Amino acid sequence: MPGKLYGLGLGPGNPELITLKAHRIMTSAPVIAYPAPDTGPSFARQIAEPYLRPEQVEIPIVMPMRVERYPAQDVYDAAAKDIAGHLDAGRDVAVLCEGDPFFFGSFMYLFERLEARYEVEIVPGVSSIMAGAAALRRPLTARNDILTVIPGPLDTETLRARIDASDAVAIMKVGRHFARIRDLIRDMGLIDRAGYLERVSLANERVFPLADVAQDAAPYFSLILIYKGQEDWISSLPIVTKDFSA
Amino acid sequence: MPGKLYGLGLGPGNPELITLKAHRIMTSAPVIAYPAPDTGPSFARQIAEPYLRPEQVEIPIVMPMRVERYPAQDVYDAAAKDIAGHLDAGRDVAVLCEGDPFFFGSFMYLFERLEARYEVEIVPGVSSIMAGAAALRRPLTARNDILTVIPGPLDTETLRARIDASDAVAIMKVGRHFARIRDLIRDMGLIDRAGYLERVSLANERVFPLADVAQDAAPYFSLILIYKGQEDWISSLPIVTKDFSA
Repeated sequence: MPGKLYGLGLGPGNPELITLKAHRIMTSAPVIAYPAPDTGPSFARQIAEPYLRPEQVEIPIVMPMRVERYPAQDVYDAAAKDIAGHLDAGRDVAVLCEGDPFFFGSFMYLFERLEARYEVEIVPGVSSIMAGAAALRRPLTARNDILTVIPGPLDTETLRARIDASDAVAIMKVGRHFARIRDLIRDMGLIDRAGYLERVSLANERVFPLADVAQDAAPYFSLILIYKGQEDWISSLPIVTKDFSA
Repeated sequence: MPGKLYGLGLGPGNPELITLKAHRIMTSAPVIAYPAPDTGPSFARQIAEPYLRPEQVEIPIVMPMRVERYPAQDVYDAAAKDIAGHLDAGRDVAVLCEGDPFFFGSFMYLFERLEARYEVEIVPGVSSIMAGAAALRRPLTARNDILTVIPGPLDTETLRARIDASDAVAIMKVGRHFARIRDLIRDMGLIDRAGYLERVSLANERVFPLADVAQDAAPYFSLILIYKGQEDWISSLPIVTKDFSA
């Protein structure tokens, strides 16, 4: 009988924000796989690290930075083949995913290749958006608020229109678009209602009012939350400042 | 020294989708509080039930159905006073929240009353939206997709405009607005790209293609997910059908 494939959401980064279910599957699966850069550690593996056992087989899915020379699809093809080998041999494989597997996650590229042939279960995880609101200490949405989640690489006019039409906004994948997005938010008169977060929920998280961030670029996994048309008591809460990165 | 107040996100309903952190705090806090209807069980308490201990003090925050006779604000005033009594006596209080405390959660009404006077920590939880995508077995967002979360009670034209401007859509709090929302989605030509979910992640969850749902009303905690402008392989995946409620 073939093994079962799991897509495990491990949450925003703090190993304690893993669910009981993901923890159970991750610690009992004989094989684990995770995305990894070609230099430096895998973020997903770092979240899981306190719970991993030395006898587990590990499959790092190494994504080279220079994707134009080594197409990403080839990497997923090879990883899917490797994982399929373990599944065919009757071994369960748990794929570790930062955040949630189906919310801007690379797990979909393995799912696409394997879902028709094997039993697959997705275990949802805590999103960095909810962890961000917890860190800023402001309720994100209430009653009939509209929340829009917008990837930062989208063009400025799309960003403006979507922010305009929402009560709460999460901008993901800010990265090198940071200065352009901050300037847009300032231009829209919303700079005092926005918070900026890096490495949310981790020991070295950085949390600031957006207006206080002087830098012009940000890490890929940074996040901006905008609190717009909300109740007065919420918008008057101070956005907390935390910086443990020094 | 006063106790600490926790807002614990317990996730979408399955007790195994509680995080390790919420589990640790929930099982060690001497006092727990949770929202409850005036008839029937508390959903938040049901999620936590496998882990509760008989010696924990329980504060049900009973919200009468007929709020016009007994204003909701009075209920939160009384609950905040009760909780403050325990905090003043040095006892930590964990407030159990379905889903995430700051994502359409009633915890904000306690937070509003207590955050200035006591230490408060928010523990984020798994959203029913991510659990919904896992249950439907379709990736919700990829690359530069825009996700919009819309409360079902909003008017039809607002719903139409926001659906139109997004790649993925989650409609929460569907309830008695179900027929109107389904008709709108059909009118927009998206009925075959939408899934309907009740009690997601619970043993008796119901998951259907929206086109197959004949009923004209839905429970309050039901959810519609629309997969719009996504990659072909995603939108061509069959939406799974699960009904264990019989």
